Amino acid sequence: MNASDKIQERIAQLRSQMKKAGVQACYFSGTDPHQSEYMPAHWQARSYISGFTGSAGLVVVTNEKAGLWTDSRYFLQAEQQLQETGIDLMKQRMPGTPEPLEWLQETLNAGNTVGADFACLSINQYKQLSSALAAEGLSLKDTGDLLAADWEGRPALPDNPIFEHDLQYAGTKRTDKINNILSFAKTNGANATLITALDDLAWTFNLRGTDVDFNPVFVGFAFLSENQKVLFVDSKKMNSDLGAKLQEDEIQVIDYTEFFDFLSKLPADKIVMVDSARTNQAAKVAIPEELKLIEQTSAPTLLKAQKSTFEIIHIRETMKRDGAAMVKLLHWLDQTVGKASITEYDVVEKLEYFRAQQEGFQGNSFYPIVGLNGNGAIVHRSVSKETADEIGKDGMLLFDSGGQYLGGTTDITRTITLSEPTAKQKRDFTLVLKGMIGLSQAHFPAGTVGSNLDAYARMHLWKNGLNYGHGTSHGVGYFLNVHEGPMSIRQEYNEQTIKPGMVLSNEPGLYREGEYGIRIENLIVCTEKEETPFGRFLGFETLTLCPIDLKLIDTKLMTQEEIDWLNQYHDKVYNKLARLLGPDELEFLKRQTQEIH
Amino acid sequence: MNASDKIQERIAQLRSQMKKAGVQACYFSGTDPHQSEYMPAHWQARSYISGFTGSAGLVVVTNEKAGLWTDSRYFLQAEQQLQETGIDLMKQRMPGTPEPLEWLQETLNAGNTVGADFACLSINQYKQLSSALAAEGLSLKDTGDLLAADWEGRPALPDNPIFEHDLQYAGTKRTDKINNILSFAKTNGANATLITALDDLAWTFNLRGTDVDFNPVFVGFAFLSENQKVLFVDSKKMNSDLGAKLQEDEIQVIDYTEFFDFLSKLPADKIVMVDSARTNQAAKVAIPEELKLIEQTSAPTLLKAQKSTFEIIHIRETMKRDGAAMVKLLHWLDQTVGKASITEYDVVEKLEYFRAQQEGFQGNSFYPIVGLNGNGAIVHRSVSKETADEIGKDGMLLFDSGGQYLGGTTDITRTITLSEPTAKQKRDFTLVLKGMIGLSQAHFPAGTVGSNLDAYARMHLWKNGLNYGHGTSHGVGYFLNVHEGPMSIRQEYNEQTIKPGMVLSNEPGLYREGEYGIRIENLIVCTEKEETPFGRFLGFETLTLCPIDLKLIDTKLMTQEEIDWLNQYHDKVYNKLARLLGPDELEFLKRQTQEIH
Repeated sequence: MNASDKIQERIAQLRSQMKKAGVQACYFSGTDPHQSEYMPAHWQARSYISGFTGSAGLVVVTNEKAGLWTDSRYFLQAEQQLQETGIDLMKQRMPGTPEPLEWLQETLNAGNTVGADFACLSINQYKQLSSALAAEGLSLKDTGDLLAADWEGRPALPDNPIFEHDLQYAGTKRTDKINNILSFAKTNGANATLITALDDLAWTFNLRGTDVDFNPVFVGFAFLSENQKVLFVDSKKMNSDLGAKLQEDEIQVIDYTEFFDFLSKLPADKIVMVDSARTNQAAKVAIPEELKLIEQTSAPTLLKAQKSTFEIIHIRETMKRDGAAMVKLLHWLDQTVGKASITEYDVVEKLEYFRAQQEGFQGNSFYPIVGLNGNGAIVHRSVSKETADEIGKDGMLLFDSGGQYLGGTTDITRTITLSEPTAKQKRDFTLVLKGMIGLSQAHFPAGTVGSNLDAYARMHLWKNGLNYGHGTSHGVGYFLNVHEGPMSIRQEYNEQTIKPGMVLSNEPGLYREGEYGIRIENLIVCTEKEETPFGRFLGFETLTLCPIDLKLIDTKLMTQEEIDWLNQYHDKVYNKLARLLGPDELEFLKRQTQEIH
Repeated sequence: MNASDKIQERIAQLRSQMKKAGVQACYFSGTDPHQSEYMPAHWQARSYISGFTGSAGLVVVTNEKAGLWTDSRYFLQAEQQLQETGIDLMKQRMPGTPEPLEWLQETLNAGNTVGADFACLSINQYKQLSSALAAEGLSLKDTGDLLAADWEGRPALPDNPIFEHDLQYAGTKRTDKINNILSFAKTNGANATLITALDDLAWTFNLRGTDVDFNPVFVGFAFLSENQKVLFVDSKKMNSDLGAKLQEDEIQVIDYTEFFDFLSKLPADKIVMVDSARTNQAAKVAIPEELKLIEQTSAPTLLKAQKSTFEIIHIRETMKRDGAAMVKLLHWLDQTVGKASITEYDVVEKLEYFRAQQEGFQGNSFYPIVGLNGNGAIVHRSVSKETADEIGKDGMLLFDSGGQYLGGTTDITRTITLSEPTAKQKRDFTLVLKGMIGLSQAHFPAGTVGSNLDAYARMHLWKNGLNYGHGTSHGVGYFLNVHEGPMSIRQEYNEQTIKPGMVLSNEPGLYREGEYGIRIENLIVCTEKEETPFGRFLGFETLTLCPIDLKLIDTKLMTQEEIDWLNQYHDKVYNKLARLLGPDELEFLKRQTQEIH
């Protein structure tokens, strides 16, 4: 059976399950019971039911029709993968594309019921979806997982081992973190809290896993109250040592599958904090109605966003190692391009190779993006051995990669020129760089949100009629997910203020379709700057240590302050990395970090 | 009877009305049936019941207690005016001050009812208030105006004449505006609309009035549908000529007091657009329940925010006249200070005197703010003859004023030095100026909101640990209110994007308590700049024409681009104003606008 026939068969099976469940549509949110951005194969229902393998999208199936909504990054891929499946491609944010709700309203009749697995809807998603459907005379029903019965060869829930994130890196004992979480709950009027997001869970317990590619998390839930601390995981995933340690810390381990049943038996005196953005609706429903719930961004989400001084010290060390690996890569490129035949895929492999030599390296923090010339303008390009272009002494190369280390998570983009750059390339690169420096140097009052700061990174591009279509900054975890909330710096409003200790990316870019892509990305940490009669002022310290290609800079477009910043940065890069490099690499780095005027 | 006894008596009368109405508290929102920022004396209930005459605040009275909430601008004044009235001063945004709702919850018992005049609550205010009260077991009831029975000597509703804003200035016929409003309503699924805000009303009908100080509006409502256009005003306010013109335009005039009754008789086929932020809850309640309402920002609010090319041409002309008046004032100050004895109040009077000589002048657009040295640091200072300080050749003088002209509304602030400035004064002034220039020169993609742009005006201050506590920009009407929504540029999020034709202030400042205040304010209009493969880019044109004090500038702190901007601006000021000035004034202006390096 070919791929599209298989998808048609799966949809037919689903429709028969929908009939049994008494629903006229089935809504796949595209996430899992932990509201993960990336998830184990077991929960990749979108890909199973549609054949579409992109990382973002949602699927809705009715008795007669089916649609997949995804964004412009994936239009081409989705078009190919949906061919002859009977699923319509719905191009998000394109004129004429109906929203899933509009589409359901047109497709269904008043009185119809939409089914969804409430375990895969956050409390907020449930609220929005159910009230929007209700406004159109449609209702929403929990069908559980309608794929469960027919999904042959479905990947099991991962049983990869859980391991300790040693205190020498974590810095704070899990018992102390739990106490902090419980006092946060208390301040919010609760005496118990759920932990449902996998990165929250990993941070709280100082545990890590490998259940999800690139994200060092494990599948589980937790319930915390003054007299009961429960971790819900498959106990096969822990060795006896770890089990004993948790027992010492008075943490009870109960099987992952017992979580909802446990919630349904919670005693009436519990006031439970749940995170309406990160807790699933099925968990909310499982809790007896008489219990009071407090909806509030989860304590670990907020606590882990502001890295401790201890963690920042480790991140600075990790940045030296990651920077040394990057310089080795740059040096290898310098030595190899034009002499040996290499492709973009070799860069993907070499990035991991040089990082793997560094102490504490645990793996990539995401699949590296490597784009030569026009490929660099495809923002989320995923290169394979088969699709890789050969790199010669011509044009520009963009590479965005990062590592997971015991002492932090890195994320860095550099763009280099492989030949004599054109004036336009230099101008574009310099305008991007001015934005990157602008945000690095920003001072701002406490209470400022990311959307107030976004223009620092864009203003020089804007002035020249240029822009980039992605956010400027995302939060970054500590040996955790490379995308970590709740803060961001982008044009869109996000109510979370930028606070000391938050680690963010700083990654303006510029993409000329078919020509080249430019992105320069450092990680920065928010720091206290000064307190004056006008308030408390914050700023950033740049954490990433890696040279920026001087050949691409047009100093005539830069202010003296910007030039000074770059010279000081390069001076720091040289001094911090020198001891980690061999003599040829060091000589190379010296040239790359020479003072400019 | 002294003032505080009188207030106590009024509160006792109110409490007896509350008893009759069956409510245990009375909530005064501080606005009128038109959600005005400034309003006729008839609706100044807050000031009648509390004795507090500030321009912002709300009052809540229960059977035992009473509280007035106001912001830091008015703490001192409110403290004095509330003495011995039995009303507690509630300092907004100060630690420990309960919000009115918390306070009501503490003060009342579950099951109690809060009364309010629903005519003075917007639909949104009603929703927020009633649901917040409901969450605490309290209910909200429309009591109408509980002061009506006992308010002796209450000012009547104003019957000032309504006059035509001539088409030679308005540019678009009212019949065309009404058609535009109705097609906007149609696009939003409605076939009728209410107009309830006074500036919306004045703009729509090309009519003006003098019912409110400084705002050239008149008290009224309107109802518009395909086959019925009704203006609800006291017909005494219109002469027969105007009445005939409206009749020609098929506009029916019905008495103001009939509005709610008219709404209650609307036929069932009407789908009515209301503005939940600007339409009062009593109007919503008056409309028969079976009618469908569409809640949406009102069409005139959106349409009038984007000034037409015709209006902008008039504004540019008006700016010449206003600029000439300002130069005459600056010249007079230059000639007078240190020679004759003058006070801040003389500046207030001279500002109006010089403006009154200009063609089309209709009055001040707000009461001028004039602050010498430390007085300049009091952001909303209102100077009277009695409180005015004498101006000598020492320190700095800030003056913020504006005029109503048939061809536009102006708002300008200049800060000048009266003596040799200190290095600190020059640095402060230059940092404020850099922000003002930065926002003037901003280019940004269509779709940008004000909070994305605010940092342009603050970044140089922030970098030096400085800031100002007010917004950077407010919208400005066209021979209408000097504060006009829906757009703004400030740190706080406002979903309204900045669009071509929008006229805004650009007014960064810096206030050193007890020393001096600096504010530099121009009006700017958003314009199209360019369209590139990266999108449509917008920018600003500066409208205000008046020199900026060169003596206060430290050019060493400025970039060449900023110096060029200032020289070009001064060159334009000189050329545009030259024909409107006498020889001495022109000679003076020449010095004030000389090129700097």
